[in-house]
Amino acid sequence: MSVTESRRRRLAAAIAALDLDALLVTRLVNVRYLTGFTGSNGALLLHSDGRVVLATDGRYTEQAQQQAPDLSVRTDRNVVGALAKGASGRLGFEEHDLTVSAYDALHEQLADSSTELRRSGQLVESLRQHKDEDEVATLARAAAVADQALADCLPRIRPGVTEAEVARALEDRMRDLGAEAPAFDTIVASGPNGAMPHHGAADRPLATGDLVTIDFGARVDGYHSDMTRTIALGPVAAWQQELYDLVREAQRQGRRALAVGAETRAVDAAARAVIEAAGHGANYPHGLGHGVGLEIHEAPMIGSTSTATLDEAVPVTVEPGVYLPGRGGCRIEDTLVVRADGPELLTTTTKDLLVL
Amino acid sequence: MSVTESRRRRLAAAIAALDLDALLVTRLVNVRYLTGFTGSNGALLLHSDGRVVLATDGRYTEQAQQQAPDLSVRTDRNVVGALAKGASGRLGFEEHDLTVSAYDALHEQLADSSTELRRSGQLVESLRQHKDEDEVATLARAAAVADQALADCLPRIRPGVTEAEVARALEDRMRDLGAEAPAFDTIVASGPNGAMPHHGAADRPLATGDLVTIDFGARVDGYHSDMTRTIALGPVAAWQQELYDLVREAQRQGRRALAVGAETRAVDAAARAVIEAAGHGANYPHGLGHGVGLEIHEAPMIGSTSTATLDEAVPVTVEPGVYLPGRGGCRIEDTLVVRADGPELLTTTTKDLLVL
Repeated sequence: MSVTESRRRRLAAAIAALDLDALLVTRLVNVRYLTGFTGSNGALLLHSDGRVVLATDGRYTEQAQQQAPDLSVRTDRNVVGALAKGASGRLGFEEHDLTVSAYDALHEQLADSSTELRRSGQLVESLRQHKDEDEVATLARAAAVADQALADCLPRIRPGVTEAEVARALEDRMRDLGAEAPAFDTIVASGPNGAMPHHGAADRPLATGDLVTIDFGARVDGYHSDMTRTIALGPVAAWQQELYDLVREAQRQGRRALAVGAETRAVDAAARAVIEAAGHGANYPHGLGHGVGLEIHEAPMIGSTSTATLDEAVPVTVEPGVYLPGRGGCRIEDTLVVRADGPELLTTTTKDLLVL
Repeated sequence: MSVTESRRRRLAAAIAALDLDALLVTRLVNVRYLTGFTGSNGALLLHSDGRVVLATDGRYTEQAQQQAPDLSVRTDRNVVGALAKGASGRLGFEEHDLTVSAYDALHEQLADSSTELRRSGQLVESLRQHKDEDEVATLARAAAVADQALADCLPRIRPGVTEAEVARALEDRMRDLGAEAPAFDTIVASGPNGAMPHHGAADRPLATGDLVTIDFGARVDGYHSDMTRTIALGPVAAWQQELYDLVREAQRQGRRALAVGAETRAVDAAARAVIEAAGHGANYPHGLGHGVGLEIHEAPMIGSTSTATLDEAVPVTVEPGVYLPGRGGCRIEDTLVVRADGPELLTTTTKDLLVL
């Protein structure tokens, strides 16, 4: 049985358990997960008895047949409408993906039929949290590409080079090393720009005395790695060393809290407590981390209001940060896999403060 | 008055004309158009009387204040919920963007209030179709980067080089020339892969006798160019020359049909008629083109069922193609701006068949 077929079987069981007759999968990343199809327009109808139809438009018919040779492919520009024609009974849909417009159209199409639309929640995302060993191996390759790219680019990170040039060098090197693309637009936030958690990479030249936060990753076979390191262009001021040590300790406590059965909110709290105890709670305005896989951000989220529980073989990031407006900031992030015998670290670049 | 403020004033007038008290803008690209804010989480509440609030989460507060210094910025992880608190009366929303989940949450939040949710259609997209001269100049720069990158890379397009290597060379060169990123994942479809309109760029080495379809563009300051050229690695077979001449003539007829006041469906028909007359209608499974700007695909669409009418200063693509399963394909695409005195061509690479 192919990997995608075994995923579809697990999903069919979940559909049947919810008393649905079929599920309409419209989120493209979920379609990819269930079929291997990577085009930019497609949807899947999966019946609880296991029958499956993939729909796409004429641009992708041949590609769909190649990527999902075991599936019946329907060609129609309106992929949702085409699939809905084949449904009957209770039809689940992904209410977190379908827009109100698309729902309206579907609802109107089915008005005179016996098909009944049902919100079905994040069924596929829930399956996707748990990675099989091939997926973990792919994530590990993506993480290794990023580790190596940073090591190779360190000599180029020096005063006078702009943030954008550092980002470009890292992204080029990741491609050289086999990444199909960067996992997301690389962040290089130097000096005062470090106070913006999601600053991009601008024309600011790095300067002596900067902290430089570098947040980047590689995409390999569709899977994303995610790593942040904060580097110093010495000399390191006392406040910078203090900031770094604080964030490093918070990140360490976050990693230690990763365990099978741990509540994500407790993992967040483990790191946050360190930063709050130092009086910097207000300077840490984001969650601790997130799942990572076919999406750079996916379930489970790890934040102060998260409700998920961690399970075996779930890759997540741990990335606390402290941001001081006008001065700068520091964030340290790893990608790790939750394991029964302790988290497996995928991003292995040192967390000692690198002073260049 | 800033560019974004004048856009917001035009939108406020459109909101008032629809008898709405306010509009909730959730599509990020629309938020960017109206404010300059480029973060990955944000929404805008625009009242018909001109009051405006931008919401984002803590990662982007400082960036939002820098990019939209004239706006009041609210920080909340739930940007939609935070803005809805400040609404009253008839509140328009973007039903083509808001998911059913997000709508459900909003509806529940407003259940006990006097605020009434109203579908407001694609108001901002409609404004965005017409580009001001700064936007056209930016698109022209993006097109020039792509033209120059192709010219510079032609010597590297030869038998034995893989599709992926050609794509990488083009993307690197576009960055060297000032692109912030490729406009989309570059397509290099060689030989039989040319039969897939949206083939990516694979490990297939180019071979003598191939047609090679290259579809790519540059993103400059958020604006996207889009161009396709089909190149031959000679010798050129008779069927290949015939195919090329056919597509070139169809593309020429499509370009000639671009005019202020032209119906998009008639523009599509002008090109399609050429291909259908040659008996290849079934081998041309997509529309003729699309608007282009802050998105690579935006309004207006130009297809056989499109209903829009073209107007002055609307940039669009014209990109017919013919795809022969198992043999190969050909597509030729330009980005042009609709003008009263005839279309302005932004992508200026020759449309003579390049034989390398």
